[in-house]
Amino acid sequence: MKQIAILGFGVVGSGTAEVLTENQKLIAERCGEAVNIKYILDLRDFPDHPLGDRIVHDINIILNDPEVVLVAEMMGGSHPAYEFTLSALKAGKSVVTSNKEVVANFGAELLVLAREHHVSYLFEASVGGGIPIIRPLQTDLASNEILAVSGILNGTTNFILTKMKKEGADFAEVLKIAQAKGYAEANPAADVEGIDAARKIVILAALSFGVLLDPNKIPTEGITGITAEHTTVADKLGCAVKLIGHTERIDGKVYAAVSPYLVPAANPISHVDDVFNGILVDANMLGRALFYGAGAGKLPTASAVVADIIDILSHKAEERRLPQWKIAEDGDIADPELYVCRRCYVIEGCARCAEKAKKAFDTEECIFINDSQFAVVSAPMTAKSADQALASTGLDAKFCMPILD
Amino acid sequence: MKQIAILGFGVVGSGTAEVLTENQKLIAERCGEAVNIKYILDLRDFPDHPLGDRIVHDINIILNDPEVVLVAEMMGGSHPAYEFTLSALKAGKSVVTSNKEVVANFGAELLVLAREHHVSYLFEASVGGGIPIIRPLQTDLASNEILAVSGILNGTTNFILTKMKKEGADFAEVLKIAQAKGYAEANPAADVEGIDAARKIVILAALSFGVLLDPNKIPTEGITGITAEHTTVADKLGCAVKLIGHTERIDGKVYAAVSPYLVPAANPISHVDDVFNGILVDANMLGRALFYGAGAGKLPTASAVVADIIDILSHKAEERRLPQWKIAEDGDIADPELYVCRRCYVIEGCARCAEKAKKAFDTEECIFINDSQFAVVSAPMTAKSADQALASTGLDAKFCMPILD
Repeated sequence: MKQIAILGFGVVGSGTAEVLTENQKLIAERCGEAVNIKYILDLRDFPDHPLGDRIVHDINIILNDPEVVLVAEMMGGSHPAYEFTLSALKAGKSVVTSNKEVVANFGAELLVLAREHHVSYLFEASVGGGIPIIRPLQTDLASNEILAVSGILNGTTNFILTKMKKEGADFAEVLKIAQAKGYAEANPAADVEGIDAARKIVILAALSFGVLLDPNKIPTEGITGITAEHTTVADKLGCAVKLIGHTERIDGKVYAAVSPYLVPAANPISHVDDVFNGILVDANMLGRALFYGAGAGKLPTASAVVADIIDILSHKAEERRLPQWKIAEDGDIADPELYVCRRCYVIEGCARCAEKAKKAFDTEECIFINDSQFAVVSAPMTAKSADQALASTGLDAKFCMPILD
Repeated sequence: MKQIAILGFGVVGSGTAEVLTENQKLIAERCGEAVNIKYILDLRDFPDHPLGDRIVHDINIILNDPEVVLVAEMMGGSHPAYEFTLSALKAGKSVVTSNKEVVANFGAELLVLAREHHVSYLFEASVGGGIPIIRPLQTDLASNEILAVSGILNGTTNFILTKMKKEGADFAEVLKIAQAKGYAEANPAADVEGIDAARKIVILAALSFGVLLDPNKIPTEGITGITAEHTTVADKLGCAVKLIGHTERIDGKVYAAVSPYLVPAANPISHVDDVFNGILVDANMLGRALFYGAGAGKLPTASAVVADIIDILSHKAEERRLPQWKIAEDGDIADPELYVCRRCYVIEGCARCAEKAKKAFDTEECIFINDSQFAVVSAPMTAKSADQALASTGLDAKFCMPILD
């Protein structure tokens, strides 16, 4: 019997207990022996829960019990989750987590510590909920150089954007519905301002390029500025508005950012709707692969946590399996000004203005949204070049959005 | 330096050499040391190829060389690929393969043999080309009971169906274009009659349920009977016609089959177009996940072969990692008559006939395709119940297709 502990008995923590109980038999088969939740750390008591007798309030009970070989941290937030992870690894216990905040902020250091103590630190559930992405990037795509990763990484904002599209509604209106349905928090800032997606794209960038950026310092724009007008323009262009976390190498340095994009229908990520997540990987041999599924939710996320638990309990800790991340220094970080993509400008003007814009943006792609407004899609260029092209026309843009090809 | 051998220097074999050469440095890093192709077995010589000096014509040279730790079999066809795999495993060499025919027909036996000889037998490239699916099913989804797998598993037929939809063309017409483009073989039977997809769904069924069915004995229907009329009806119903390999458990037994389906737009697999493959997994905790990408092609498929090579060379062979498949006996195989799904019947008739059909099929879903023809979508039922429902109306159906929800 393998003894494990759960830290945090909230949504994902209790979901993890549920997966371990519900699929007990097959998990035991795959681990080679049964897995028992010996302790659950939480501030609260759960006297009526079948596992209520496992609740402890002192992390040291877990750290000092040599029987516990693995700790599943699902507390959320940086502190004390980070300190508890640190202590567990130092005590020679492997750690699995769904906590993207801890992985994005402290992952490099925690991976080093895990290697030093010959244990594992796995975090499949930290990105894309239940969708397999962390492990495939490290195993199935190990034969490839990763060129770029673009993802719909936040279910709440994708739900809002999908509903805005379907109903032609504005952001604030739909946010209220999402909150009523429990898809958005009372304080939705981490979701709608792109902070959650920023943490996740930083993790994917680290897995792809070996450099851990500071999630608080990458260019991050949420969806609070998106209006029915944006979705209308998107629709006319055969695109969907999506909040995208994107990372790629520019001149050998790492670029990562979060921003609303127009995504053309030809890109499979444009069809990822509602609360689902989708992650598109561009690799030098494989080409494009999309990973799609439930990016959040109790059981899907717990399913990924338990996959990590099985992985650790069924294998000996091998140093090779843990990635090595360099904490980003200035020289590792690409200048965001150098990021190149096609860009859509919506401009008030006549047919002659549109001709002028097409010339300036080096493109034939231009359509009229209504009698006096057109959308022009630039050739691939930097934001600065595109703004200069616009300035050269003497026209004013109502708004501009990047395009994810 | 790790020494390996390639069997078969065709499209995937030469692609594998290309991936190993192109991404040499990162592969060496991930394997812990450089990987060298010591031999390439082929009937032909390649005097002008940079690796032409590695060509051998006798398998025994490879089998008898103790330096060779791994053999990558990409010969295609059952024989002598099966015999060579057998000999390599017995000689204590791990084998990786893209050969779905060998895996689907002999996988159970080869996995036993690999375990006995403490080596690995991996086959990520045998299903979905470069798309990660075999390993995710065994690792990321290890915490789940698999409920069903449905896949667009053949790029050639998906290209044909996509083109038929876009151009309203018939099968024969589009087949010629596909052949001219090199997407379909001169003898396209294995693709268009569903034989290739049958091998792949049998492999996915074995991974999901532990039972290896005979790919030659599962219900298999291709796309040769699909006409512009089918795609028109699909379009009116908001569906796409797709050739689907599907497997699930029915009453504890394994069902697997290949057939054209109508796939509603709400199912993400309906958006998998052109030569791409998509595999939808239903799991009891995760829910639905879709794996999408290049299901064939030289470099994508080779990318999966090399991922398996890296996996083996960077880990010690551990018995646990190889699945155990039982060869299906009669008691393991579900009666196809028990398979339940919604079914679309296209029927010649008036509004009163349509009302009669709706009642018989226990449904409200019925639309007129033109003045005298309607499509009615049954409630979920077996084929037999649906046919009985039809018979009870006294109406004749022009055709019938299952629906993949």
